[in-house]
Amino acid sequence: MAAKAWQGVFETTTDKRVEQFTESISFDHRLYRQDIAGSLAHAQMLTKQGLLTEEEYAQIETNLKEIEKEIEAGTFPYQIELEDIHMHIERALIERIGDTGRKLHTARSRNDQVATDFRLWVRDAIDDLSGQLRQLQKAYVGRCERDKDTVIPGYTHLQRAQPVLAPHYWLAYCEKWERDWSRLMDCRRRVNVCSLGSAALAGSSLPIDREMTAQLLGFEEVARNSLDVASDRDFVLEFGFCLSVIALHLSTWAEEWILWSTTEFDFIDLPETFCTGSSIMPQKINPDVLELIRGKTARVIGNLQALMVLVKGLPLAYNRDLQEDKPRIFDAYDTVHDCLALAIPMVEQAELRRESIASRLEHGYLDATTLMEYFIQRGIPQRKGHELVGKLVRQATRKKVPLAELELEAFQEIEPSLTEEVYEVLGVQKAIERFVSYGSTSPAQVAKQVAFWQEKLAQES
Amino acid sequence: MAAKAWQGVFETTTDKRVEQFTESISFDHRLYRQDIAGSLAHAQMLTKQGLLTEEEYAQIETNLKEIEKEIEAGTFPYQIELEDIHMHIERALIERIGDTGRKLHTARSRNDQVATDFRLWVRDAIDDLSGQLRQLQKAYVGRCERDKDTVIPGYTHLQRAQPVLAPHYWLAYCEKWERDWSRLMDCRRRVNVCSLGSAALAGSSLPIDREMTAQLLGFEEVARNSLDVASDRDFVLEFGFCLSVIALHLSTWAEEWILWSTTEFDFIDLPETFCTGSSIMPQKINPDVLELIRGKTARVIGNLQALMVLVKGLPLAYNRDLQEDKPRIFDAYDTVHDCLALAIPMVEQAELRRESIASRLEHGYLDATTLMEYFIQRGIPQRKGHELVGKLVRQATRKKVPLAELELEAFQEIEPSLTEEVYEVLGVQKAIERFVSYGSTSPAQVAKQVAFWQEKLAQES
Amino acid sequence: MAAKAWQGVFETTTDKRVEQFTESISFDHRLYRQDIAGSLAHAQMLTKQGLLTEEEYAQIETNLKEIEKEIEAGTFPYQIELEDIHMHIERALIERIGDTGRKLHTARSRNDQVATDFRLWVRDAIDDLSGQLRQLQKAYVGRCERDKDTVIPGYTHLQRAQPVLAPHYWLAYCEKWERDWSRLMDCRRRVNVCSLGSAALAGSSLPIDREMTAQLLGFEEVARNSLDVASDRDFVLEFGFCLSVIALHLSTWAEEWILWSTTEFDFIDLPETFCTGSSIMPQKINPDVLELIRGKTARVIGNLQALMVLVKGLPLAYNRDLQEDKPRIFDAYDTVHDCLALAIPMVEQAELRRESIASRLEHGYLDATTLMEYFIQRGIPQRKGHELVGKLVRQATRKKVPLAELELEAFQEIEPSLTEEVYEVLGVQKAIERFVSYGSTSPAQVAKQVAFWQEKLAQES
Amino acid sequence: MAAKAWQGVFETTTDKRVEQFTESISFDHRLYRQDIAGSLAHAQMLTKQGLLTEEEYAQIETNLKEIEKEIEAGTFPYQIELEDIHMHIERALIERIGDTGRKLHTARSRNDQVATDFRLWVRDAIDDLSGQLRQLQKAYVGRCERDKDTVIPGYTHLQRAQPVLAPHYWLAYCEKWERDWSRLMDCRRRVNVCSLGSAALAGSSLPIDREMTAQLLGFEEVARNSLDVASDRDFVLEFGFCLSVIALHLSTWAEEWILWSTTEFDFIDLPETFCTGSSIMPQKINPDVLELIRGKTARVIGNLQALMVLVKGLPLAYNRDLQEDKPRIFDAYDTVHDCLALAIPMVEQAELRRESIASRLEHGYLDATTLMEYFIQRGIPQRKGHELVGKLVRQATRKKVPLAELELEAFQEIEPSLTEEVYEVLGVQKAIERFVSYGSTSPAQVAKQVAFWQEKLAQES
Repeated sequence: MAAKAWQGVFETTTDKRVEQFTESISFDHRLYRQDIAGSLAHAQMLTKQGLLTEEEYAQIETNLKEIEKEIEAGTFPYQIELEDIHMHIERALIERIGDTGRKLHTARSRNDQVATDFRLWVRDAIDDLSGQLRQLQKAYVGRCERDKDTVIPGYTHLQRAQPVLAPHYWLAYCEKWERDWSRLMDCRRRVNVCSLGSAALAGSSLPIDREMTAQLLGFEEVARNSLDVASDRDFVLEFGFCLSVIALHLSTWAEEWILWSTTEFDFIDLPETFCTGSSIMPQKINPDVLELIRGKTARVIGNLQALMVLVKGLPLAYNRDLQEDKPRIFDAYDTVHDCLALAIPMVEQAELRRESIASRLEHGYLDATTLMEYFIQRGIPQRKGHELVGKLVRQATRKKVPLAELELEAFQEIEPSLTEEVYEVLGVQKAIERFVSYGSTSPAQVAKQVAFWQEKLAQES
Repeated sequence: MAAKAWQGVFETTTDKRVEQFTESISFDHRLYRQDIAGSLAHAQMLTKQGLLTEEEYAQIETNLKEIEKEIEAGTFPYQIELEDIHMHIERALIERIGDTGRKLHTARSRNDQVATDFRLWVRDAIDDLSGQLRQLQKAYVGRCERDKDTVIPGYTHLQRAQPVLAPHYWLAYCEKWERDWSRLMDCRRRVNVCSLGSAALAGSSLPIDREMTAQLLGFEEVARNSLDVASDRDFVLEFGFCLSVIALHLSTWAEEWILWSTTEFDFIDLPETFCTGSSIMPQKINPDVLELIRGKTARVIGNLQALMVLVKGLPLAYNRDLQEDKPRIFDAYDTVHDCLALAIPMVEQAELRRESIASRLEHGYLDATTLMEYFIQRGIPQRKGHELVGKLVRQATRKKVPLAELELEAFQEIEPSLTEEVYEVLGVQKAIERFVSYGSTSPAQVAKQVAFWQEKLAQES
Repeated sequence: MAAKAWQGVFETTTDKRVEQFTESISFDHRLYRQDIAGSLAHAQMLTKQGLLTEEEYAQIETNLKEIEKEIEAGTFPYQIELEDIHMHIERALIERIGDTGRKLHTARSRNDQVATDFRLWVRDAIDDLSGQLRQLQKAYVGRCERDKDTVIPGYTHLQRAQPVLAPHYWLAYCEKWERDWSRLMDCRRRVNVCSLGSAALAGSSLPIDREMTAQLLGFEEVARNSLDVASDRDFVLEFGFCLSVIALHLSTWAEEWILWSTTEFDFIDLPETFCTGSSIMPQKINPDVLELIRGKTARVIGNLQALMVLVKGLPLAYNRDLQEDKPRIFDAYDTVHDCLALAIPMVEQAELRRESIASRLEHGYLDATTLMEYFIQRGIPQRKGHELVGKLVRQATRKKVPLAELELEAFQEIEPSLTEEVYEVLGVQKAIERFVSYGSTSPAQVAKQVAFWQEKLAQES
Repeated sequence: MAAKAWQGVFETTTDKRVEQFTESISFDHRLYRQDIAGSLAHAQMLTKQGLLTEEEYAQIETNLKEIEKEIEAGTFPYQIELEDIHMHIERALIERIGDTGRKLHTARSRNDQVATDFRLWVRDAIDDLSGQLRQLQKAYVGRCERDKDTVIPGYTHLQRAQPVLAPHYWLAYCEKWERDWSRLMDCRRRVNVCSLGSAALAGSSLPIDREMTAQLLGFEEVARNSLDVASDRDFVLEFGFCLSVIALHLSTWAEEWILWSTTEFDFIDLPETFCTGSSIMPQKINPDVLELIRGKTARVIGNLQALMVLVKGLPLAYNRDLQEDKPRIFDAYDTVHDCLALAIPMVEQAELRRESIASRLEHGYLDATTLMEYFIQRGIPQRKGHELVGKLVRQATRKKVPLAELELEAFQEIEPSLTEEVYEVLGVQKAIERFVSYGSTSPAQVAKQVAFWQEKLAQES
C-alpha cells in the first residue's frame, strides 16, 4: 500500500524537505478530539446507510476511542510523514483493523474533514471564551459594592472632564464585554453549520445522510452548497475578528490601569504578585502583565490581518494556502484566552487608592459642566453658559483655586442674577449628585445598573 | 461671542495650520442629513421636557429644514474654521435665530452628536449594502436557467478536480453573499443603539428623556452606560469587518473570472463595455474592472486595520484620534458599494464560452472520484479504491487518453471483477449525473436549490 | 479617431459606470509636472534618435509647457472619460498639434510612463520629507540650550526609572529622525532608477536611447530588465514603510506629550494655539493636534498594509490592481507631511513646566540605580547590591521618604561599611552628575552630543 | 538570595500564572549563543576597566563556555520561573561561581542585554538570508542556458501581451532578489550598532568602555544616546519589512507557477517530489509547496503589522510590550527562510513544457505591438498605428487566425503602402528578434544580461 493516502497516481515519493514544509501535525494535533468525534458520527451514518456493517462500526468505534485515550495519555506517536492529525488517526486505525479502517474515508475528503473538525473546535473555543467574558463581568460587578462611594475623574483627550463613580467605570467595561459576548454568539450560529459530506467540492455519488451526521455532531444546519462550503473560511475570519475586538477592549483597560499605576496618577494598587521588577533598577515595580496584555493585542490583530491576506483572491474551492489558517487562529485564541485568564483576578484584586484620588479630585474643574447646566436651568442658552463658565475657569486657573473657592462677586460679574445658591452645584461631590439622566453616573442610576447586572449575571450562571 | 463653540476658556485663537489639520468638514459634510435629523429629535425632546418652548422648537425646525435644503442645493457655504458639519449647521442656525439656536446644544456634547449621526449613517449604509447583496444574488440566480446544462470543471489547488454544473457554481456565491447579509444584519442590531444623552461622558444633570429621542430616531435601544458609549467605536470596527469580508468574496470572484477570461482558460466572455485596452498593445482587451475590484480589496482591509490600530490602547472616553474613523469607513463603504454596483451587471451579462469549455472537459480526469465511489459501492475499501484509480489515471496519462478510453483489460488488470458496466460511470457527463448527496452538484439537487433561492429572493423584494 | 487611446480593437464603447470606476484623474492629476518632464525627456531622446524631427520636438515642447501653465493656473479642463493625467495631457497635445502629438507615445507604454512619473514624484516627496526631518531635528537641538538644566524623570514601563537631562530626551528623538532620514536616502537610491523604455514589458523594436532619457531626468541608473521594471512596485512599498516608521516615531512623541500635558503629569505647556476645547465642557483645553498625530499613524500603517496586500500574488507584469497604489501612498505622504509640519512648531514652542517637574522629582526613587552602582564600586557584586537597594527602597516607601532622607543606621543595617559618604550619591541632582558613560545623560556627555548635532545640522543647511 | 533578579523591593512572590504569562524562555532560548557572546565581551571590558579581576574573568569565561556546550548538547534545563534565556544563563553561572557571577550584570540592564543579543541575532539572520538570495539568483541564472531558445508569452492583466525569452523571465526575478538583497544590506548597517552600555536608559555611573565592547562584538558603531537606544526597535521593523518584500516576491513567483502548472496553461512540470495528492480525488497532483509559499506571505505581512501595532504610541523608554517583538520576527524569519530553501531546488528542477508552450504561442497576437512599431518606422504616428493594428486584430479574431495569416489585401486596405515585407515582422519568433532596446527581451540583450549575472554571482561566491 502506498505510503501516503494520495500516493496512487505518483511515481516518486515526497522530498523530505517538502514533508517538513507541508506538515501540519505540529499544530493541528490539538484537533484530535474533534477529529475522532467527527469520524465516529461519520461512521455511524455510513452504517445506517449500509456503507459499513454494524460489526465494522463497532470495530471502528472501539479503536478510535482507544486511540483517543492514547493521545490523551501522551503515548501516541507523531511523525512528520503522516502530515496531519487526520492521517495519523486514520493510519493508526488501519494498522489496527486493516480494510475496515480503509473504509472510514468513504464519501469524505480531507478538506471536508478538516473543515468539520475546525468548526467543532471554533465552537468549543467560543463557548470557552464566552464563559471567560461572563467571569470578567462578574469581577467588575463584584467590586461595585466596595467601590461604590469612590469618585474618580473621567477623561476625554486624557484631560480631566467630569467626575464619575467608580462603579460607573466598571459597568462601562461590562457593556464592552457584553457586545463581545453578543458578537461571539452571532459568530457561533454561522460556525455551527455542517460541512461534512461536501466531499472534494461537488458532493458524493454515494447515498450519505448529511442531516444525520449534522445532528450527531450538534450542528444546527447542513451547508446547502458543497462548492461553497469546501472553500469557506468566513467562520475563521469572523472568529478572528471577535477575538480582535476583545483584545482591543483589553488594550484599553490595560492602558488605563498602566496610567493609573504611575507615580503621577497614583490611582490604583495592582496586586504585587502581578508585577515584576527590573534587573538593574532596584526600586522598580512594573505592571508587566498589563503591558503584555496591551502588547499582545498587536499579535491578535496581526493574525486577523494574516487571515484576510490569506484568503484574498483565492479561487474556489480548496487551496493549500488555507492550511495556514489554523496557526493564526490558534495563536489568536490562546493569546486572548490567556489575557482574559489574568484580567479576571487582576480586576478582582486591584485596589483603588481612595485617598490619593480624593486628594486631587478638585483639580481639573470636573464640576464646570454641571455649573453650565445649572446656568441653562436658569434660562441661559447653552452656548452662552458655556462661554461664561469658560471665563470663570480662566479666572480660577489664574488664582489656582477650584471654582467653589471663587468669590460670589466673580460669579455675579459674569452673570448678575447669581446668588449664593450657585455654591450648591460646585465641588465634585455635589456635581455628581446632580446627575439625573438615564445611563448617567448619578448614584441612583448607577445603583440601578449594578442591580441590572447582578441579576443578569446571576441568571446566566 | 467666541469664534469657536469652545473658546471661552482660551486666551488666544487657533493657529491657522491647526484649523486646517484638525478640520473634518471636508469629509463629514456627508453626515448633514443625519445631523439635522438628530438635532430635530433632540429639540423635540427638549421641548417636551420644558427646556425649549414650542415656539423655539418651531423656529429651530423651520430653520434646520431650510439649512438642509440649502445643503442639498449646494448653496450652503463651508469654511474650515467651523471645523465640522455639526458646527456649520449650529452656527448657521444661531445666525438665523440667535439665542434660540444657542439652546440647541443643551444636554448634548459634540462627541454625543457625532456618535449619534455616525450610527444613523452606518445604519443607512447597511441598508443600502444589504439591498445590493440581494440584487447580486438575483443576478446569479437569474442566470441559472440559461446556464443549466453547462458543466464546468471544479478546481482544488487550481488543478481540475470534479465537474460541477454552472448553476452550482453560481449558488456557491449566493451562499457567500448570504453570510455577508446575515453579518450585516447582526451588525445593524449593535449599531442601532442610541448614544444621544451620554453627553460628555457622565450623562446630564438636566431632565432629558433619552427614550423619546431614541424612538424618534428609530433606535431599538438606549445605551445603558454613558461612559461606555462615549468611548465606543465597536460598531465602526464591526461594519468595517463586514465590508472586508464582502470585499474578500468579491476578490475571489474577480480572481476566478480574470482566470476564466485568459486565452488559456477561455471560459467566459466579459461584456466588452466592461473591459479596457492598452495604450501600446493594440490587441489587448483587458478585464480591468475585475482587476480593480480585486485590488480594491486591499484598501478595504487596510482601512479595517487602520481602524483597529486607531482604537488600540486608547483610554476612556473620547480621544481626538477617533475623528480618523470616518475617512476610513467612508472609503471602505464607498469602495465596496462601487464594486458591488459593477459586479451586478457583470454577473448578469457575462457569457460562458460553452463550446470552449466543453471541448476540453474530458481533460484532467474529472470523473476519477466518481469511478472510485463506484468501486466503493462494489465493496472495495475507499483507501484501496483510491489507490487503484490512481494507477488507472497514471496509465491514462501515459497514453494521453481520458479514463473512458482505457480498454477493459486495463480495468480488469487492476480489479478483475470489473465489467463493461464500468463505462457507465465514466465521462464527465455521466459522472455528474451520479451525484446524489444533499448540497451536491447533481442536476436534481441543483434544481432544488435554484428553486429555494428563487422563492427566497422573491419573498424579500 | 477612436475615443480612447486603446480603442482600435474594440467594437463597443466603455460603459459610463466603468469610466467612473476605472478613472484615476481624480487623484493622479498631481503627477502633471512629472508627466510633462518625462514626456519632454522622452521627446528629446526620440528626436536625437531620428524618431521625431527637430520641428516636431519644438512643437511638442512649446505646447507641453503651455499645457503645464494651464494646469498650474487651474484652467485646464479634466474629464472622467480621459481616464488619467497622461491621457489628458496627450489628448490636449494632439488637439493642438495633430499627428505630431500622436507620435509622442512612440516606444512607450502607459505603465512605463506612469512608473516613470511615479518614481519622479516619490523622489520629490523624499526630498521634501528629508528637509522636514532636518527642520524637526533643528527644533529639538534648538531648545537644548534653554532646557539644559532641567532634569526630568525617565521611564521604563511608564514607571519612574532614572533621571535624565531634558536635552538628553530631545537628542533621543534626533536619533530616531536620523534613522528615518537614512532610510529615506537608501530608499531614494532604489527609487531613482529609470524604467522608461521598458515599454509594455518586453522593450521595444525601435532604436531608443534609454541612457539619455535617464540622464535628462536625473535618474542614477537604467533598469536592466524590462519585464521586472514593468511589474515593480517595490519602491512604493519601501517609501510606504519609511513613512510608517516616521509616523510611529511621531506617535511615540505625541503619546508622551499627551501624557505630559495631563493634570497628573503636568510636565509641559503646549502652545494654546495648538489646542482646542470642548463643546460641552467649558474648562477643557485639549491636545487635539497631538491626538490626531497619534491617530493618523493608523492610516499610514493601514496604507502600507493595503499596498502589500495589493501586490501579493500578482503575476507579472502590469495588472490594473496596481492603479490603487497611488491613492494609498499619496494619502500616507500627505498625512506624514502634515504631521511633521505641525510637529516642528510644537517642538519649538512648547514649554516645560520646570517648577512642577522639580517639585516631584524626588518621587519614584530615580537615584536607586546610582546608589547600587556606588555599592558596586565599593566591591559589592551587582546582584547583591541590587537586592540591598531594593530593601532600602522598601523601607523608604513605608516611611514615605526619598532615599536621601533615610537615616544612616538604615544604610548601615543593610551594609555595615557604609558611611556618611553615601549621601553624596543620593538625590536626583547628585545622581545625574555621577553618570560618566558614553551616550549617557551626564551633563558633559550631553553637552558633547548637543555640539555634535549643532555642527552636523549646520553643515547640512 | 531573592528568587528573581529583581526581587529585592518585593514583599510577595510572583503568581504562578503570571510567571507562565510573562515568560519568554519558550522562544528566546534561541538567543543563547548571542547572549553568551555578549556577556563575554561585556566581561572582558569590565576586566579591562578594573570592575572584574583577570581571575574572575577567567572563571566567567570557562563557565559560560561550558554552559553554551550544555545548551548545544540539549542537557541544559529550562524552567519557566527563570523567565528568559538571560536569567537562565546568569543563574547557572551564579550557581557555579557564586559572587563572581553576581558581578557580571554590572553596568548592564536586561533590556540592554536583550537589545544587544537581538541585534546580533538579526545580523546573523540577515547574513543567512542574503546567502539564500544569492543561491536563488544562481538557480535562475543557472537555467538560462537550457531555456535560452524558449519563448513564452508575457502577460499584462493576465492577458497575453508580448513574447519574452524564458531567460528574460528568469532575470526579471534576479532583479527582484537583488533589490531584496540590497535592502537587507542597508538594514544591516542600522542593525549593526551597539546598544550595550545604555543600561536602564540613562547610561551608567561606572567607568565602562562601550567602544571596546562594540569592537569585540563586531558592531560598526556605538549608539550615541542611551535613551533612544533603550527604546529603539526600528531595526526589528526594518528587518520585518525586508522579509515582507521577499515574501511578496515569492508570492508572485508562486502564483505564476501555480497558473503555469494548471491543465489550462500547461507551461511547466514541477518536480513530482514537490507535489502532493488528494485523499479523495485519485488523479490529483497538486502544487502544494507553491500554494503554501503563497499563503505564508500572509503570516509574514501579518507579523510586520503586529510589530508596527506593537510599538505605536509607546512612550520612552522600554515597555514590556516589546517582549512580543521576538516571536513575531522569529516566525517571519523562519517562514521566509523555509520558503527560500524550497524555492531554490524548485527553480533548479522544474521543466518548461516547451512543446505545449510553443503549440499555442501564436494565440493572443503577441506580435501586434511589433507590427505597430513597424508602422511607426514607416512614418505612421504611434496613435494612428495603434488604431490600425487594432482593426487588423479585430479582423484576424473574427477569422480565428494569427496576424501572419491575414492576406496582404487586409493590410493594404488598412494602409495602402504596405507590401509583402510586412510578413517579415509577423509571427512570434520574428517579433522577438526585432527587439533592440537596452533591457529588452532581444536575444542579444538577454545574452548580455545573462553574462552580467554570471560574472556578478561568480564574484560573490
